[in-house]
Amino acid sequence: MNHAILLISCPDQKGITAAVTNFIFQHQGNIVHADQHIDEQSNTFFMRVEWSLDGFMLKREDIQRSFAGIAGPFKMQWQLSFTSRKTRAAVFVSRHLHCLYDLLYRHKAGQLFCEIPLVVSNHPDAAKLAQDFGIPFFEFCVEHQNKIAQEQKQLELLRANQIDLIVLARYHQILTRQFVDCYPAQIINIHHSFLPAFAGSNPYLQAYQKGVKVIGATSHYVTEGLDEGPIIAQDTAAVSHRDSLEDLKRKGEDLEKIVLSRAVRWHLERKILCYGNKTVVFD
Amino acid sequence: MNHAILLISCPDQKGITAAVTNFIFQHQGNIVHADQHIDEQSNTFFMRVEWSLDGFMLKREDIQRSFAGIAGPFKMQWQLSFTSRKTRAAVFVSRHLHCLYDLLYRHKAGQLFCEIPLVVSNHPDAAKLAQDFGIPFFEFCVEHQNKIAQEQKQLELLRANQIDLIVLARYHQILTRQFVDCYPAQIINIHHSFLPAFAGSNPYLQAYQKGVKVIGATSHYVTEGLDEGPIIAQDTAAVSHRDSLEDLKRKGEDLEKIVLSRAVRWHLERKILCYGNKTVVFD
Amino acid sequence: MNHAILLISCPDQKGITAAVTNFIFQHQGNIVHADQHIDEQSNTFFMRVEWSLDGFMLKREDIQRSFAGIAGPFKMQWQLSFTSRKTRAAVFVSRHLHCLYDLLYRHKAGQLFCEIPLVVSNHPDAAKLAQDFGIPFFEFCVEHQNKIAQEQKQLELLRANQIDLIVLARYHQILTRQFVDCYPAQIINIHHSFLPAFAGSNPYLQAYQKGVKVIGATSHYVTEGLDEGPIIAQDTAAVSHRDSLEDLKRKGEDLEKIVLSRAVRWHLERKILCYGNKTVVFD
Amino acid sequence: MNHAILLISCPDQKGITAAVTNFIFQHQGNIVHADQHIDEQSNTFFMRVEWSLDGFMLKREDIQRSFAGIAGPFKMQWQLSFTSRKTRAAVFVSRHLHCLYDLLYRHKAGQLFCEIPLVVSNHPDAAKLAQDFGIPFFEFCVEHQNKIAQEQKQLELLRANQIDLIVLARYHQILTRQFVDCYPAQIINIHHSFLPAFAGSNPYLQAYQKGVKVIGATSHYVTEGLDEGPIIAQDTAAVSHRDSLEDLKRKGEDLEKIVLSRAVRWHLERKILCYGNKTVVFD
Repeated sequence: MNHAILLISCPDQKGITAAVTNFIFQHQGNIVHADQHIDEQSNTFFMRVEWSLDGFMLKREDIQRSFAGIAGPFKMQWQLSFTSRKTRAAVFVSRHLHCLYDLLYRHKAGQLFCEIPLVVSNHPDAAKLAQDFGIPFFEFCVEHQNKIAQEQKQLELLRANQIDLIVLARYHQILTRQFVDCYPAQIINIHHSFLPAFAGSNPYLQAYQKGVKVIGATSHYVTEGLDEGPIIAQDTAAVSHRDSLEDLKRKGEDLEKIVLSRAVRWHLERKILCYGNKTVVFD
Repeated sequence: MNHAILLISCPDQKGITAAVTNFIFQHQGNIVHADQHIDEQSNTFFMRVEWSLDGFMLKREDIQRSFAGIAGPFKMQWQLSFTSRKTRAAVFVSRHLHCLYDLLYRHKAGQLFCEIPLVVSNHPDAAKLAQDFGIPFFEFCVEHQNKIAQEQKQLELLRANQIDLIVLARYHQILTRQFVDCYPAQIINIHHSFLPAFAGSNPYLQAYQKGVKVIGATSHYVTEGLDEGPIIAQDTAAVSHRDSLEDLKRKGEDLEKIVLSRAVRWHLERKILCYGNKTVVFD
Repeated sequence: MNHAILLISCPDQKGITAAVTNFIFQHQGNIVHADQHIDEQSNTFFMRVEWSLDGFMLKREDIQRSFAGIAGPFKMQWQLSFTSRKTRAAVFVSRHLHCLYDLLYRHKAGQLFCEIPLVVSNHPDAAKLAQDFGIPFFEFCVEHQNKIAQEQKQLELLRANQIDLIVLARYHQILTRQFVDCYPAQIINIHHSFLPAFAGSNPYLQAYQKGVKVIGATSHYVTEGLDEGPIIAQDTAAVSHRDSLEDLKRKGEDLEKIVLSRAVRWHLERKILCYGNKTVVFD
Repeated sequence: MNHAILLISCPDQKGITAAVTNFIFQHQGNIVHADQHIDEQSNTFFMRVEWSLDGFMLKREDIQRSFAGIAGPFKMQWQLSFTSRKTRAAVFVSRHLHCLYDLLYRHKAGQLFCEIPLVVSNHPDAAKLAQDFGIPFFEFCVEHQNKIAQEQKQLELLRANQIDLIVLARYHQILTRQFVDCYPAQIINIHHSFLPAFAGSNPYLQAYQKGVKVIGATSHYVTEGLDEGPIIAQDTAAVSHRDSLEDLKRKGEDLEKIVLSRAVRWHLERKILCYGNKTVVFD
């Protein structure tokens, strides 16, 4: 697969789609996927277009400059990527390993189009698992007084490995604003409730005490506010009075795995556009 | 169908099930449904047992007194009811008629085991619909200054009609504590979100602005706190960035109808036990 | 709303999207929705594009001729429609009225963009319901020996009313091939199972006897083969050993209503393209 | 946890529940879970009762004999088990490893109350995975001409390891009747469709070609007829025209994992009763 993908957003006006698709056609590109959306409230146009580079008349390095001539007049915010370059993802985890298991299995099975050069944790529990999958494991013991320093070391590690996506697969540390600012819309978290209900700690306990009949999981981009970033994916499952707190956790784990891997896959396939505190997902 | 139903809760100890089922067997009753649940945190035992009165050796009016001898030593809270007596339900509605429609259709189709002697509203919109189904319609214009007085008139109407269940099918008035206290665990509301998320007014707008990927509906018993009573049923549906606010409302309506009618049916079939702020539903 | 909608399918090649969107842009149209799909197995391109006619430089009657110049070279099959013209739908029903109820309520609530000039039945049961909604009702007693003759009368009635969509809302008669051929991809049926399982009669009984843990409903276009036409929408619900045959029917009714109305709404909004025995739904 | 569990079925009559619960109470047992069901069509009574053996006055080895005195007059079929004895399960797998992964992870995480002494396969692919979890792996190359002989060796291995549950986690060999007869209602299979639709080979391809909008998975006990044994659990997921055959497989894998592990857990917790070709699941 040798494709280019453009993600575009701009104020809506006539002719945007024609301009973009003409650009591709004039250089002999074959569109394999195109989708668009207009947010009527803000009059914003969103588009994702993917085309084959087989026979495309522009070199990769020239597309960026050439397309800028289209993008300018429409005041586009845009992002160009190529399927020939795999995203490099780091997985952060603490002691609950189900999401890490799931991600590594899917990665090995070819469902996640990325490289996973490292697993990071504040506990040693995941070391054996990472090892079984042949992935380097790095432990950073994080405590209140060393948090800033440890985050600095983590950032160095991430940069040294050219990481461009961080997946928080039940990583039970709140990242500082400084850390988050280094990876805008590049950190995906799984929260084990249907946000905005039960934000913060112990969401299954909160759900159990409230007596809800549905539990959920939410994957979202991490922003400064805890559990408040743009929601990417959510799913729910039915529960009843028969379900103990342990049952909620067990049923919830299955949701977490599905919802997190869905968000990661969409991110890797460049299917997500953020606007304000929401997402457009061109699934 | 000529059945008796017992709903029981008490501190858990040995021999409760044996005592109850012996009582029924010794008087020649045939159990057609029995279910129990133990809440381990509070060590509380819950039971629902339903048996046929064909050939039962106690008359209806004697069962209550006779069973009291069993219930006392176990410190049971219990409620005895008979399928020969239909619940009399009043439906309260404002201007969104989809739930009223749904309830009246289901009632007519024989899915709701109750009588519906009246429909109450603070607007005239539902009059024609109630008339089509042959049900008396009562309009009470409610404003800030006449609320108490109008509630008093409503209570008189309800008592005159021996109402023992009030269904708030999108009734957009907050009932006073005085009103609610008259019908403990006998008022069922539908809230158009997956509580505890988006309590209060305009939940679909809240959901739209938050950018959730799942919407929900919640039926619950009404207590003093707004949208805080014990949850009976919940359900959810997937939404995406393509869904406008109007789409959320349309999709949500289908949830509301299903979740409210489910709660009402369970209540009518005596399948719900409240404890604390939660419910046991013996479905 | 004053929009034009094009549904297109043709062999895939470079430049189709550019050609279509250029056509719209050159005549000053503003695209409000565009979606495309490529079926890789058959190398077929599908597109739905909707644009505003406000300020569009071609008159409605000229668009067809003008676009033919684009469509020809690409060997497009295409269908042009305008939101200014409402589809005229006839609902056929027998004795189970839940889907008819649901459709008429949604129509009244503004959820279905069509006119419903008539309800047709082989039984008198739906007469009162149609009357409540102010819709003319026509009864055609259909028996083995008069089927062809009655269908001829139905066809005359449909033509006289310029019907262009027939919704079989639990109409328990098998239409002849002659009848079906008059309305290709214009007859939508609801089948009360997740096809291809349990085709034919009594699907709930079949499901009950098989002991499935999930029931379903399927809406599809009607073709010559019984319950074999292209599937438009499906949904399922969980059931258990506790559910009697009556429970399956009751739970299934809710699925039927949702799945049928979903298909009808998509059809009315020109969101469905058939190819072979499958559908593309641009939802 | 030190519990006894009784699974009972018999012709329905008065007094069964009383007799069973009296038996437990008279010997000082505390019931922690009791559920019953009556199949009205066949007038059959089903019950699952679980009680604590702490302070129970009968020794384990005496319960069987003592309860036989209750069971006889009611013509009960019954099965007594103890949580102190773990089921010994063998997992059979071919080349698709997702279900095996899932089961081994859940087992390790304490979600499956069993021992897994061995993994059996007709291919070498799972060897590394079994090794990572520290479970002995046995490969039996099965071909048409050596099938009977290989099954004999497998049976010897199973007996030597006192296996009492066989989980077919995508094992792509049809077991002979002779093999199946050795483990009645002790072999659980996962089929990757919502049975009875798409039985046999390549169900995802069948689903793709049919153009269904819902895919499913089914776990069932294995009987002589292919994919025809009593259904234990089913679940479904929405798909669309956008989903390629590969997408169906990927989405289906998640269903398979959930549906198979659910069935296995219910079996291990003695929550399933078979009758005819159906199951009662006391979840």
